[in-house]
Amino acid sequence: MDTSHALIDILLMFAAAKAGGFLLARLRQPPVIGELLAGVIIGPGVLNWLRPAEFHEILAELGVVFLLFSVGLETHVGSLKAVGRVALLAALMGVALPFIGGAVLIKALGGPTPEALFVGAAMVATSIGVTARVLGDMELLRTVEARVILGAAVIDDILGLLIIAVVGGLTDGTASVAGLGLLFGEAIGFVAFMAFIGVPLARRTGRHIGAARHQQEGPFALALLFCLAMAALSTKIGLAAIIGAFLAGMVLAETREQWDLDEQIQPIYRFLVPFFFVVMGAHVDVHALAQPSTLGLMLGVVALAVITKVIGCGGMALSLGKRSALFIGVGMVPRGEVGIIVASLGLRLGVLPVSLYGVLIAMSILTTLIAPPLLRALAPDRSLTALDLPYGDHDEEIVP
Amino acid sequence: MDTSHALIDILLMFAAAKAGGFLLARLRQPPVIGELLAGVIIGPGVLNWLRPAEFHEILAELGVVFLLFSVGLETHVGSLKAVGRVALLAALMGVALPFIGGAVLIKALGGPTPEALFVGAAMVATSIGVTARVLGDMELLRTVEARVILGAAVIDDILGLLIIAVVGGLTDGTASVAGLGLLFGEAIGFVAFMAFIGVPLARRTGRHIGAARHQQEGPFALALLFCLAMAALSTKIGLAAIIGAFLAGMVLAETREQWDLDEQIQPIYRFLVPFFFVVMGAHVDVHALAQPSTLGLMLGVVALAVITKVIGCGGMALSLGKRSALFIGVGMVPRGEVGIIVASLGLRLGVLPVSLYGVLIAMSILTTLIAPPLLRALAPDRSLTALDLPYGDHDEEIVP
Repeated sequence: MDTSHALIDILLMFAAAKAGGFLLARLRQPPVIGELLAGVIIGPGVLNWLRPAEFHEILAELGVVFLLFSVGLETHVGSLKAVGRVALLAALMGVALPFIGGAVLIKALGGPTPEALFVGAAMVATSIGVTARVLGDMELLRTVEARVILGAAVIDDILGLLIIAVVGGLTDGTASVAGLGLLFGEAIGFVAFMAFIGVPLARRTGRHIGAARHQQEGPFALALLFCLAMAALSTKIGLAAIIGAFLAGMVLAETREQWDLDEQIQPIYRFLVPFFFVVMGAHVDVHALAQPSTLGLMLGVVALAVITKVIGCGGMALSLGKRSALFIGVGMVPRGEVGIIVASLGLRLGVLPVSLYGVLIAMSILTTLIAPPLLRALAPDRSLTALDLPYGDHDEEIVP
Repeated sequence: MDTSHALIDILLMFAAAKAGGFLLARLRQPPVIGELLAGVIIGPGVLNWLRPAEFHEILAELGVVFLLFSVGLETHVGSLKAVGRVALLAALMGVALPFIGGAVLIKALGGPTPEALFVGAAMVATSIGVTARVLGDMELLRTVEARVILGAAVIDDILGLLIIAVVGGLTDGTASVAGLGLLFGEAIGFVAFMAFIGVPLARRTGRHIGAARHQQEGPFALALLFCLAMAALSTKIGLAAIIGAFLAGMVLAETREQWDLDEQIQPIYRFLVPFFFVVMGAHVDVHALAQPSTLGLMLGVVALAVITKVIGCGGMALSLGKRSALFIGVGMVPRGEVGIIVASLGLRLGVLPVSLYGVLIAMSILTTLIAPPLLRALAPDRSLTALDLPYGDHDEEIVP
């Protein structure tokens, strides 16, 4: 029950994240990069002040759950539907190209098939969190491009997790067609239920909950409960917790009380989300990457990871114009935590050698570091791309 | 990195706490009792759905740190000074009587001296958290009685921790007079520094910080950082983390931006504090207490714990009137987490047998359960006891 060492680690992580974020903000860069680099610096690779253990991972997980919950709170399913076709196509090609590209590269270098499949899988999923944070920092969350990116990333995550299940099952020898079919069905069913039942239900009952909102803390506690429940349910049916958290936020975005929730979730976001990025940074082992052969492979994998997403996702979004298509392609580049999860799974299953594990971690981090400055450079003109806003936003505009 | 089991536990704890709190609120009882009882029920003693492990303890610790931080934010050192003499006397007698009473009881029953000293030590410290929560629920935090209770509990905690250090050192054989003297000096120095340097400093710089408060999230992040830093510093010099958190809140209460902080800390409070009470509840082993001899001892210890605090603290506060003195005495009764920490320390050092450990846990919980309904019954008339409020409160009154 000696929790004082934990408290000191929490202080260290929070202070490093805020210092890094502050510095990068002064340099006019997204604070999230500062939080990641702070993690790299205090992590085992450099200063070795922080060695991520179970409780650090749990804090990071809580952070990413609330990150995706607040992204969901900003997502109106109406706007998602408006860009649904482009997002779906972008997601499909953004999954196919990196997977094939990664697997072919490893096979061409003489690697065994399971290894090749795992590298392909790690290159598939988009880390919606990093891009969402950058879009939020730039106040671009309500543009068409942001909606396509967030919509595609949700579809992407689900497809990516299905690929992981298949690849993990293939290398494990325990996969059955029935089991994979069940997982696939559950994933589709979960999203469809939330979008087509949850959202209209929330819209209808929103007024009742709204009426009760001055009672102590009812709606906020219910919202937190709903977020945690959907995140836990997500993991129970074999999906990532963040998918449930995002869907929970999306459903609650439809209630009239959205604005109160949004305000109340901010302090929790500000306290917990930095832990996610610091812990992600701390997972980078700088020394393992310093060897020339590993370095070369890493650069090749990173280049492939960037190119396949830009061509795959951007190419499907050309109908929005070249600049927007490129913006969307770049927005899908970060692999972040999802790439790291796949890499660690491969390591645990004994499929990935340590050097290749390091390469995938670096790929996840570097794609995450590359995207924000490129996104800032490519930022679309907001006045040209502003969406037709749902009713909630009009309310806001009435207030002087 | 499998954090999904943790997420499910977090959901379980949060849902149980909110359900318990909601039920008790419906029964017009303090929600905190519901959160505690929810912990007892889902804990190993009854349903065994929750077995507190490291990360549960860390979440609970974060909860109690933010609990004490927000209590501190409500505490103006000026008001503490106004009741300082009574609070100091109440704290001194409230430490002496339970310590002597507990030790004498165990010696009279034929127990060895180290065991007697540990039981005495566990009966000393007041759990400021539970009473503060009840006072907050009843909106009584700004009464003279609340100030005496909170002031005495702070002094009490420091004295109690010094006793633990002495008793732990005596039974350990590692204590030196110099070491204990250093700890004592550090504790006094810490509080004095915060009260006499930190508070005036915060008051003077408050305007500058206030001017910067519309910049993104500066002051709030700084406040969280200050809270965590003081909590960590507290543990570094051998005190409980909650003392630092309370003092950090007390210093920040003096800045003009207090109201913004107060509002922003609420969501973090609502999310994290319930974990503390659920985990405390989960530590109760109902079966170990069911044996007749243990049950008898337990009732004796509980009765002694209540009587010594009521006489010790209440007796010193008689200058405020009989009813107020009784209210203050009862307010000092809960032993809560501090009693549990002492008990677990005694168990780890091999000084306390398992049955006596269970008795001290039960004493901590029962004194915590007894106090809230008694406090509600004895609640002072607010109009008679309202304090001369500091300027911040007048600001509030100007607003219609």
